[in-house]
Amino acid sequence: MSGVATTPAAADGSRLDVMNFLNEIAGQYPAAVSFASGRPAEQFFRLDEWLGRVPAYVRHEAQQRQCGVAEAFNTLAQYGRTNGIINGLIARQIALDEGIDCPAGQILVTGGCQEALDLLLTGLCRHEDDVVLVRSPCYIGLTGVADMNRIELAPFSCDDTAVAAALRQTVSAVEARGKRPRLLYLVPDFDNPTGAVLTRAVREELIAFCAARAIVIVEDNPYGMFRYEGERVPSMYALDRHGCVVYLGTYSKTICPALRVGYAAVPARMFGDAQAGKVLIDRLSQAKSFVSVNTSQLTQAVVGALLLSEDGSLSRLVAGPRELYRRNRDLMLAHLAATFADLRGQVGWNTPEGGFFLTLTLPFVFKRREAEICANDYGVLVMPLSFFALGDEEDCRVRLAFSNVTPELIADGVARLGRFVRDALRRPGFSSHS
Amino acid sequence: MSGVATTPAAADGSRLDVMNFLNEIAGQYPAAVSFASGRPAEQFFRLDEWLGRVPAYVRHEAQQRQCGVAEAFNTLAQYGRTNGIINGLIARQIALDEGIDCPAGQILVTGGCQEALDLLLTGLCRHEDDVVLVRSPCYIGLTGVADMNRIELAPFSCDDTAVAAALRQTVSAVEARGKRPRLLYLVPDFDNPTGAVLTRAVREELIAFCAARAIVIVEDNPYGMFRYEGERVPSMYALDRHGCVVYLGTYSKTICPALRVGYAAVPARMFGDAQAGKVLIDRLSQAKSFVSVNTSQLTQAVVGALLLSEDGSLSRLVAGPRELYRRNRDLMLAHLAATFADLRGQVGWNTPEGGFFLTLTLPFVFKRREAEICANDYGVLVMPLSFFALGDEEDCRVRLAFSNVTPELIADGVARLGRFVRDALRRPGFSSHS
Repeated sequence: MSGVATTPAAADGSRLDVMNFLNEIAGQYPAAVSFASGRPAEQFFRLDEWLGRVPAYVRHEAQQRQCGVAEAFNTLAQYGRTNGIINGLIARQIALDEGIDCPAGQILVTGGCQEALDLLLTGLCRHEDDVVLVRSPCYIGLTGVADMNRIELAPFSCDDTAVAAALRQTVSAVEARGKRPRLLYLVPDFDNPTGAVLTRAVREELIAFCAARAIVIVEDNPYGMFRYEGERVPSMYALDRHGCVVYLGTYSKTICPALRVGYAAVPARMFGDAQAGKVLIDRLSQAKSFVSVNTSQLTQAVVGALLLSEDGSLSRLVAGPRELYRRNRDLMLAHLAATFADLRGQVGWNTPEGGFFLTLTLPFVFKRREAEICANDYGVLVMPLSFFALGDEEDCRVRLAFSNVTPELIADGVARLGRFVRDALRRPGFSSHS
Repeated sequence: MSGVATTPAAADGSRLDVMNFLNEIAGQYPAAVSFASGRPAEQFFRLDEWLGRVPAYVRHEAQQRQCGVAEAFNTLAQYGRTNGIINGLIARQIALDEGIDCPAGQILVTGGCQEALDLLLTGLCRHEDDVVLVRSPCYIGLTGVADMNRIELAPFSCDDTAVAAALRQTVSAVEARGKRPRLLYLVPDFDNPTGAVLTRAVREELIAFCAARAIVIVEDNPYGMFRYEGERVPSMYALDRHGCVVYLGTYSKTICPALRVGYAAVPARMFGDAQAGKVLIDRLSQAKSFVSVNTSQLTQAVVGALLLSEDGSLSRLVAGPRELYRRNRDLMLAHLAATFADLRGQVGWNTPEGGFFLTLTLPFVFKRREAEICANDYGVLVMPLSFFALGDEEDCRVRLAFSNVTPELIADGVARLGRFVRDALRRPGFSSHS
């Protein structure tokens, strides 16, 4: 493997570097097949057409406020409400599409979901003893916010069925150190990076446990509308009767990322207390005014226009992409099965019922160095699960994103991965290089 | 004054509340004349027309990258470069309009200037001993970021000609306490809230002092393109030969706020060191990836399209608004002169050569309570300079924004202010209520 010599030796680096690695790697290897980033499929973007619907949103606004269209356009172009202007439309959309009942006044529109994560973590963890509970591996956008703000993370690794037990143990350990478990972060539907879905029973167990201990659950759900098969599990926000779940959503996957529109839905009665629900939304709003003033009203108007023309729901809009993602997943599964037919005892993968990712498990440790060899010498970009890990444990797993690749590239990329794995297995002691 | 009874008693509140006060007050008193917020004049917004230019920007991008227009549209709608996509156009615009020479690679596109402030303060002040130097009164967006992130502010008050001396004294005091002066924040052109402009001599003195002590100067310049008269002073970034000035700009005032597009221009050689310039831009980029991923590529495209169609400069676009602001300032000055003709010994104001604000000085203390009385009983919204102050000193000054009001409202609002001042002066011991 010539790549061992030409690839510069690199430690796995801090978690803070990984987001940049993800963002920049496609530019570094333009000829490589990328299974690295969970980007939505571009062939469904209609940005030019969507821009043309903005005037319809403005006419709607003018009607609501009983003013002229020109005035409504100018109000849109101006500074505006910190919490957003399409809150009512968002409340309706998540009611229709996700069965979530949240008053518009408890919704904060954010610059993508990332801003909501930043505001929530920094807003809820103000004391140095406050700790964020996360499953490892964990979405980098969350761990990055914690690291940037020096907020302590308490990670735990466990099977998808044993989350509540692992959480209980982690909370006890955190409390034993005199720290305060403040927040539990979860992607219950088609987790990034693992693709896992939490069962209803697990969700209810987690809610009961966190409600009793005043731990806020942050439910991040970017992929929930992309279920291809199997029975849908209600969101934790919808199951919550205690007011302990804050729900985060984004229009980056369902419409397009360039809008940078996401939101946080805060319970009206936090832990049963209406005052506390108001206090949290107000605190987030105050913080937002110093981070971004308000979310672009132009991009909010694009979302608003689409929601108006779609009768409030995104279900019709996501039908095409969802079908494409299902086909891509099936194709990737078929190519994996064919490529690794003779290695089924050593190479494995899961079959996610939705979302953008599947997880490949190799018979050797796969970290940054191996990812660089794949990119350099085999022309295929993938993300080691170690990038998302919070401990130093060895990890043989690789995240494969299939959301924004063509059938040809899926075939080609899996073949490249196959060549890498075979070469690596032929090289004695390969994994000791990691 | 009936308002004294009906207005609830309110302390001046924390600085963190003030941004919300500013954002929400217009909604609370819809019938009042507002001189409160420095919003750009809406009659020059052409958002509908500007949206129509996005395809021209996309065609330009397609040509640059030698791809099809549909592909370029999809790339625009997708996730993208953390540092932005219009950096080259921004570099050209500030070269043409501001005489600033900054390579495109040293520019970070941000979600309005507020995000740039947030990233710079949190990025540069990582140690608990790091202190931000500010003139008091100071723009709330800056002090709010510091307060939210518990970054210590070292404020100083002084005449516009004595800034360097006051800074020197403050730095000595900070260092004597074992703290590290890390950053000096300034709005050298048409300061918010005071409207003041720093002379070239003062700017050069500050640059020499800060360069020698490795203090980063953050030059925030939202109003620089709105000079009505008098000789332009070069920006501190343009005067800087040491690489100690980071320049912040925004398109909120020159185009419109709904875009939420601003930028930071970082010196290529920070304090003479090319590596340090690269390190700072990379650190800001990394932090940005966890705050907002990237600035909306759609709103960047609107800015890009306008810059392309305007041959790279905003000078033609701001000519109309600048003339309106000059007329508004003149009208406000004339009404102040007429209204307070018999009180010229007691009531005073400055004559700013540009920008959005002037400062009225009253013969009694004017704080939050007085602002509420003005709003409630006289129907005029203004901002006490005490809202922007960092100490507890009494302040008799009021900020009047004239950027987004009609001639009729200027006449009406100044008359209302006149009635308030006369009533207050008739009430013995009025200022003792503050």
